[in-house]
Amino acid sequence: MRQRIQFPLDLLTLDSEANTSLHRQLYNELSSLILHGKLKANTRLPSSRSLADELSISRNTVIAAYDALLAEGYVECRSGSGTWISQLPEPTKKQKSPEDELHHPQLSRRGNVIAHQPKDQIVPGQIAFHPGFPDIREFPFSTWARILKRHARYPHEDIFGYHSLAGHPRLQSAISNYLGVSRGVECTPSQVIIVTGAQAAFDLCARLLLDEGDTFCYEDPGYSGAFSAMLAAGGVATPLFVNRDGWSIPESFPSNPKLFFVTPSCQWPMGLAMRLENRLELLNAAENLNAWIIEDDYDGEYRYRGKPIPAMQGLDKSGKVLYVGTFGKTMFPSLRIGFIVVPARLSQAFDAAVSITGKHPPLLLQATLADFIEEGYFAKHLAKMRRLYSERQVDFVAECNACLGEWLSVEEIDTGMQVVARFKTQMSDVDFCKRAAAHMVDVGPLSPHYRHSPPEQGIIMGYTGVGAKERQKGLERLKAAFQESR
Amino acid sequence: MRQRIQFPLDLLTLDSEANTSLHRQLYNELSSLILHGKLKANTRLPSSRSLADELSISRNTVIAAYDALLAEGYVECRSGSGTWISQLPEPTKKQKSPEDELHHPQLSRRGNVIAHQPKDQIVPGQIAFHPGFPDIREFPFSTWARILKRHARYPHEDIFGYHSLAGHPRLQSAISNYLGVSRGVECTPSQVIIVTGAQAAFDLCARLLLDEGDTFCYEDPGYSGAFSAMLAAGGVATPLFVNRDGWSIPESFPSNPKLFFVTPSCQWPMGLAMRLENRLELLNAAENLNAWIIEDDYDGEYRYRGKPIPAMQGLDKSGKVLYVGTFGKTMFPSLRIGFIVVPARLSQAFDAAVSITGKHPPLLLQATLADFIEEGYFAKHLAKMRRLYSERQVDFVAECNACLGEWLSVEEIDTGMQVVARFKTQMSDVDFCKRAAAHMVDVGPLSPHYRHSPPEQGIIMGYTGVGAKERQKGLERLKAAFQESR
Repeated sequence: MRQRIQFPLDLLTLDSEANTSLHRQLYNELSSLILHGKLKANTRLPSSRSLADELSISRNTVIAAYDALLAEGYVECRSGSGTWISQLPEPTKKQKSPEDELHHPQLSRRGNVIAHQPKDQIVPGQIAFHPGFPDIREFPFSTWARILKRHARYPHEDIFGYHSLAGHPRLQSAISNYLGVSRGVECTPSQVIIVTGAQAAFDLCARLLLDEGDTFCYEDPGYSGAFSAMLAAGGVATPLFVNRDGWSIPESFPSNPKLFFVTPSCQWPMGLAMRLENRLELLNAAENLNAWIIEDDYDGEYRYRGKPIPAMQGLDKSGKVLYVGTFGKTMFPSLRIGFIVVPARLSQAFDAAVSITGKHPPLLLQATLADFIEEGYFAKHLAKMRRLYSERQVDFVAECNACLGEWLSVEEIDTGMQVVARFKTQMSDVDFCKRAAAHMVDVGPLSPHYRHSPPEQGIIMGYTGVGAKERQKGLERLKAAFQESR
Repeated sequence: MRQRIQFPLDLLTLDSEANTSLHRQLYNELSSLILHGKLKANTRLPSSRSLADELSISRNTVIAAYDALLAEGYVECRSGSGTWISQLPEPTKKQKSPEDELHHPQLSRRGNVIAHQPKDQIVPGQIAFHPGFPDIREFPFSTWARILKRHARYPHEDIFGYHSLAGHPRLQSAISNYLGVSRGVECTPSQVIIVTGAQAAFDLCARLLLDEGDTFCYEDPGYSGAFSAMLAAGGVATPLFVNRDGWSIPESFPSNPKLFFVTPSCQWPMGLAMRLENRLELLNAAENLNAWIIEDDYDGEYRYRGKPIPAMQGLDKSGKVLYVGTFGKTMFPSLRIGFIVVPARLSQAFDAAVSITGKHPPLLLQATLADFIEEGYFAKHLAKMRRLYSERQVDFVAECNACLGEWLSVEEIDTGMQVVARFKTQMSDVDFCKRAAAHMVDVGPLSPHYRHSPPEQGIIMGYTGVGAKERQKGLERLKAAFQESR
């Protein structure tokens, strides 16, 4: 009887109506009392029978709770004398204010760099005119779902196991074929490293090719996602200037970059294609500096006038180019499959790196995508979207100039999924985009893409993801935003 | 006529039977001749009409090829005087031997560390007894495929757009609920960061929490995948010794680790559960050192005797624990969805980091998994597998001791998907595993998991992925391998 009196039964509140089982509740209460010192070490627990009686519950319930406490070391059995509460380490007393914690989350230096990079995120209900956004309503989802289900239904080893870290062999092969025909990329399937999107590709390249303090040469203005990845890898940026006429490739690079990042098929955000002369100059520079080139071909498939321009990778004779592509813009963004075509001598290193960094996309989706390409659906979809986007660009530019011509001017361009509009009067693009966001229109400012040269002001507008109605509505809202700013 | 004579028509070979279109062939040939200097700069091209005549092809074909050359800068138009070959930069002459390149792939220092980490890869045809491999034949793929198709067929914004970098909100919520009930993890949905598997989680944690040269404290023996991730982030390892009796938590940590990596629910590779006393000691140490703890709960769901032991995260009062889980072992490996439950004050940083590193899994699969969990299929599957694996362990241990008792001994354990067998005579486990591989059996050596203490020799055997027949065949083959080694 002594234990029962010592034991604070009144602290135990069990609820037979709760979702949690009784033995779990009892376990939770007892473990909490022990942890908080309300039940002291070297106290004996009541026998299971007597506690069951006291609480009017079944003895098995008590035994189950005691077993759990025993398994975890809250209590211990002493032979012949029942179950005792264990001696546990004292909790540390040091206290910090929650506010202190919030402001000093104690990340690594690198972690702080990573955590403070800008994100490209869409606000729901505010789609028009986010750049780089395909019209997902046009994607043949029923075909996609059919192929997906075909694979998902049966547990094939090659799709549900651990094989193929660098990519599903059939997808590597399908991409290699596709790139050869349509993008002039020369590679074998094993050079195609499948990763979880273009951003994963930049991150992987940056980590494998740059050490802390290494210089990378970077388009100014340029794509901040890739910039962030190289910064996160400890790289130091040096600019490669781009203006409306194109790239300025200097004769020499005194900062001795280890890596060039370029978007030669469709410069981000300018939409220009790099002329052959500049491509060759850059390849020569990389060869002389023993540097790498990351060729981001993010919108290379969308060329509306003339043939698509073949990739730099095809001109590269010394294996310096890493070609990055993604299916996020040709299919749908959240597919999260991209790829890097690496020089043959880097295949093994990237294969290992994909494994260590966990960047391999689900094999189920890889196999589905391989079929989607091999069965011709991808090419068909791409051709359809190229026509659609070409028309949309013409309409967008015309309507934009008609509706907003008082404030800005915009021209048709040959490639890509967005256009840059310039203001006719002096105006802060960052301020204007905030005002547009208040009107629930998603346009991006041009100036933050400049990091070295004096920024141009303008707005980047994606026209591919929006149909005629939404376009008109978006333009009207932008008009209201402009009128407000007078 | 002059140009036609100068122009090396005999170098042009077009094949009207080829798969490539004629204008592409012509473009390819001309661009190659220009790049290789066979057609010199400042030479005029024949007019489209005359070249078409000479080659007996349509004039439109020639125009299309010329347009492509023009767009890329191979040629230029001079007003009134036709199309001329551009002056291009001279290619660099410097030559390297291909062998030289192969041996010096010019990775960053970090890149070399990453590229030389061991990979956990399955050899097809050699499955039994790879550790950590679930029986994918038991997974309800038809249910999975049905839910998947339901989502894949319609282009919902939340699944096919760019939202939710840290995870699909419904999946974050489903995981948070599941972990609360079954693993004792306390968190809000926004603390659940969805990533492409456990390895991606370790990589992300290591990069955000460690700088180059920082010390991490690591189980010895321990899991090499996590070790590799921390090494790749520039970390320096200090051991936390584990033996058959459990963890030795020292009173002080003179090396001042920034990070602890532990597997408290099911120690890898020993299969032990950490006692509550050690858990609290470790939490205290982390609090005093202002260090983080990564709790890898890789097999926590598979506990065969008694209740699953709640995670350390639930005991953590000061927000030091990052809890890592994966669906690769409870569902199927190539699903590539894992998660990190981070302290609330790190949510934003991890959200940003997922974006920069491209580690977010496809939203389509996230939404499917959310349904799979919410509709009860996950819990049902898990309960079924727990029963199945429990039986398989009993059978495996019995058959293994019966068949191989002359050479090794193995005991039942309470958790996990693999057991460690010890040799009865002195023997190299690495050598033995090579011999087993020659017999097409996949068993892993124990000793390489030790990095600091003198290694035990033994073999790690996964019993969960193999049925009775395959198990028997595998054991017979191992017997042959042992007999050979006498």
